[in-house]
Amino acid sequence: MNYEDFFGDALSGLHREGRYRVFTDLERRNGRFPHATHHSPGGQRPVTVWCSNDYLGMGQNPVVLDAMHEALDRCGAGAGGTRNISGTNHYHVLLEQELADLHRKEAALLFTSGYVSNWAALGTLAGKLPGCVVLSDAENHASMIEGIKASRAERHIFRHNDPEDLDRKLRMIDPSRPKLVAFESVYSMDGDIAPIAEICDVAEAHGALTYLDEVHAVGLYGPRGGGISEREGLAHRLDVIEGTLGKAFAVHGGYITGSAKLCDFVRSFASGFIFTTSLPPAVAAGAAASIKHLKASGTERARHQERVAQVRARLDAAGIPYLPNDSHIVPVMVGDPVLCKAISDTLLDEFGIYVQPINYPTVPRGTERLRITPSPLHSDADIDHLVGALSAIWTRMGVEQAAAE
Amino acid sequence: MNYEDFFGDALSGLHREGRYRVFTDLERRNGRFPHATHHSPGGQRPVTVWCSNDYLGMGQNPVVLDAMHEALDRCGAGAGGTRNISGTNHYHVLLEQELADLHRKEAALLFTSGYVSNWAALGTLAGKLPGCVVLSDAENHASMIEGIKASRAERHIFRHNDPEDLDRKLRMIDPSRPKLVAFESVYSMDGDIAPIAEICDVAEAHGALTYLDEVHAVGLYGPRGGGISEREGLAHRLDVIEGTLGKAFAVHGGYITGSAKLCDFVRSFASGFIFTTSLPPAVAAGAAASIKHLKASGTERARHQERVAQVRARLDAAGIPYLPNDSHIVPVMVGDPVLCKAISDTLLDEFGIYVQPINYPTVPRGTERLRITPSPLHSDADIDHLVGALSAIWTRMGVEQAAAE
Repeated sequence: MNYEDFFGDALSGLHREGRYRVFTDLERRNGRFPHATHHSPGGQRPVTVWCSNDYLGMGQNPVVLDAMHEALDRCGAGAGGTRNISGTNHYHVLLEQELADLHRKEAALLFTSGYVSNWAALGTLAGKLPGCVVLSDAENHASMIEGIKASRAERHIFRHNDPEDLDRKLRMIDPSRPKLVAFESVYSMDGDIAPIAEICDVAEAHGALTYLDEVHAVGLYGPRGGGISEREGLAHRLDVIEGTLGKAFAVHGGYITGSAKLCDFVRSFASGFIFTTSLPPAVAAGAAASIKHLKASGTERARHQERVAQVRARLDAAGIPYLPNDSHIVPVMVGDPVLCKAISDTLLDEFGIYVQPINYPTVPRGTERLRITPSPLHSDADIDHLVGALSAIWTRMGVEQAAAE
Repeated sequence: MNYEDFFGDALSGLHREGRYRVFTDLERRNGRFPHATHHSPGGQRPVTVWCSNDYLGMGQNPVVLDAMHEALDRCGAGAGGTRNISGTNHYHVLLEQELADLHRKEAALLFTSGYVSNWAALGTLAGKLPGCVVLSDAENHASMIEGIKASRAERHIFRHNDPEDLDRKLRMIDPSRPKLVAFESVYSMDGDIAPIAEICDVAEAHGALTYLDEVHAVGLYGPRGGGISEREGLAHRLDVIEGTLGKAFAVHGGYITGSAKLCDFVRSFASGFIFTTSLPPAVAAGAAASIKHLKASGTERARHQERVAQVRARLDAAGIPYLPNDSHIVPVMVGDPVLCKAISDTLLDEFGIYVQPINYPTVPRGTERLRITPSPLHSDADIDHLVGALSAIWTRMGVEQAAAE
C-alpha cells in the first residue's frame, strides 16, 4: 500500500471534479468589518466579505472585545484542563447561566464548538436511551448526522420540513420506545425555516423528545435573540435547544439548553464533553457579553433584516436569481462547481468581493451556489458594488438570468 | 417513556457509585498561577491548583497574552466561519506553519480541539483508506477510540506499550491491507511513556502508518518542545504527530502534522474539520506565540522537571505512595472513588489545595487517584504545604502508607 499515492489520487479526484477547496487567507480588520485584507499569492489586497457567519458584526463590537481583554487580563489565556479537572472557570458558569436564561430553560451545557455540541449531545442521548429511535430531518447538518451515527441508534430520515412524513414514520415505531426528533430552525444553505410548532405537535403526540438546532438563528431572531423558537413562542415545547457562540454571537463554542436533569445527564456521560479542554475564559466572557448585549438590543437585528431585504431587492432589479426563503441567507444558485468557483474567483480578483463558492459535500452536487450573508454593516455602496459586479459577471459569463427565464 | 425519570435514575446511579462529578468553580488569576480563587458555595476562597494541564504556566506568560490582546485589537473576536467559508484567518495560516516546523513535517492542520483532531483525523484516515485495519494501544485516549469507532474500520487492540503484541497482531493481517498504528507518547493518567522506536520498527516492518498522540508531551519534552518524538530523534518515523494547544501551550485547539498530502487529504475529507467554525484569531495568535517561545526557551522545561523531582522526593520522604513513571505526572493512587473524593474535598476545604479526584470512566474502576501536576511555578512553600496536607490526611484517614507496606 502506497499511502502517499492514495492521498494524491484522492486529491486529484477533487481537482478533476472542480471541488478542490482553496482556503482564502483573510485578515479580519477590527472596526472595519465587513472589510478585510486578503493575503493573496500576489500580495495583500482589500476585500469586502459577503459570506461571513458573523451575521451581525458582533465580532468587532467593543462590548465583546472589552469583555475578552478584561478576562485575559484577569484569568490568562487557556482554561488549563477539562471541565472536571481544573478547567471550570467562573466565566463558564456565568455563561451557562446566561444561555439557560436566553432560552428560558433550567440549564445549559457548554461545548468546545457547535459541531461538538450536536455530535456529543445527540450521540449521548440517542446512544444511552435504551432502544432509542432517532427521527432526523433529511437536511440536518453534518454534525447532527455524525452524532446520530455515533449513537448506533436506529434512525429514520423524515422528509425535509415535513411534519406529515414525520408522523407517518413515527406511527410505525413501537410506542413504548424512546424517540428523539432532531431538526434545525434555519437551514444554513437554503435558508428555509422549519415548521417548529407542527413538528412539536407530531412529536408530542408520539411521546418523542424534540431537539432543535438553532445555530443560524440565535442572536438573530426573537425579541431577545433566542432564535426562531423564541420568536414563535415555542421554546418551552423543545426538550433541547442547541446553539452556537461562533456565528451571530461572533466568538466561539457551542451549547445545549434543556432541563436540569437532561443537561446533567449529557454532562455526565458525553465523551466529547468530558474528555476535552474547556473553552478559554476570555472566549466564555466574550460570548456572555455578546449574548447579554443582543438580549437587550434589537437594533442589530432590525438593521440586519433591512439589509437582507435591500440585497434581495437589488438582486431582483438586476435579474440575478436567488433561492427565496424567510431567513437572512441569500443563496445565488449556480449549479456547477467549476462555474461557481470561476464566478467567485472573478469577484475576488477583479472586484475585491469575497463570496466563497459552496460545493459538495456542503450542498448536494448540482446545487453549487454563492451563499451571500448581508450584515448590518454592509453599506449601500457595498451592496451597489456587489450587485454591479454580479451583473457584470452574469452578462459576461452568460449565466442564465432570471429575467430571461 | 418518562425521559426525566430515566435521566434522574442514571444520575442517582452515579451518586450511589460515588462518581457523580461536581465541577470546581475556579477563577484563574493571571500572574498568580498556580494560585486561584475558588467560587465555593460558602464564598470565594484562595486555592493552590495542583492538577492543571497548563503544565508550564504559559497561560499567564506575557508573550502569550500580548499576542492575544494584539490579535483581538487587530482582527476582533471570532473567525466568522468555517475554514472554507470566510473563516481562514492569517493567524491560522501562520500557526499551521509554526506547527509543521515544530515537528519538522511538511504540513499541519488545525482543529478546534485536541479531542476533535484525534476523532476527525483517525476517523477520516481509517475510514477512507480502503480496507484499513487499525491497531490501537489498549490505553489510548477516548478521543482516539471515538475516532476509530467512527471510521467503522476493523480494529485490533494491542497490549499497552507492547511492541511484541503489536507485532503478533500485525502478522495476522493480510499484508496488502492498509494499516494504521495509533498510540500516545505520554499517557495522561499513569504518566508512562511509549517505546516509540520499537513501535515504529514493528509498524515499518508491516508497512503500517504510524499515528502518535503527543498531547501530554508537546512543549514539555525535546530541545524545542517537539515532544518525546523530538527528544528521541524519532519525529521523522511518524506519519502523523498529533498535539494540543490547550495543555503546555496553554491556549486552546488541536492539530495534526504530517506530509503535505496526508494533511490535505484530512483537510478535504474530515467532517469534523470541514463543518465547524475555526478558532478565534486571538486563540491562534496566542498559541503561535506560546509555541515560538517554547521552541527557543528551555528554562520552563528544566524548572518543570526539577519541580516534579522535588515533589516526588518529598512524597517519598513522607511515605505517600505514587505511581512511578518517567514523565511529569504524579499519580497518587487511592483505589476507591468515595475515599478519593473525600481526600480531595478535605484538601480543598481544610487546606486550600485543589487536586481533582480522578475516577471512572477517566481511569479504570479501582484505580481512582489524585493526579498531581507540578509546574515550574509551584514554590517550595507550595510543595511543603501539599505534602504536609497529604501526610495529615493520610494519617487521619488511615490511608495505607508506602512506608508501612
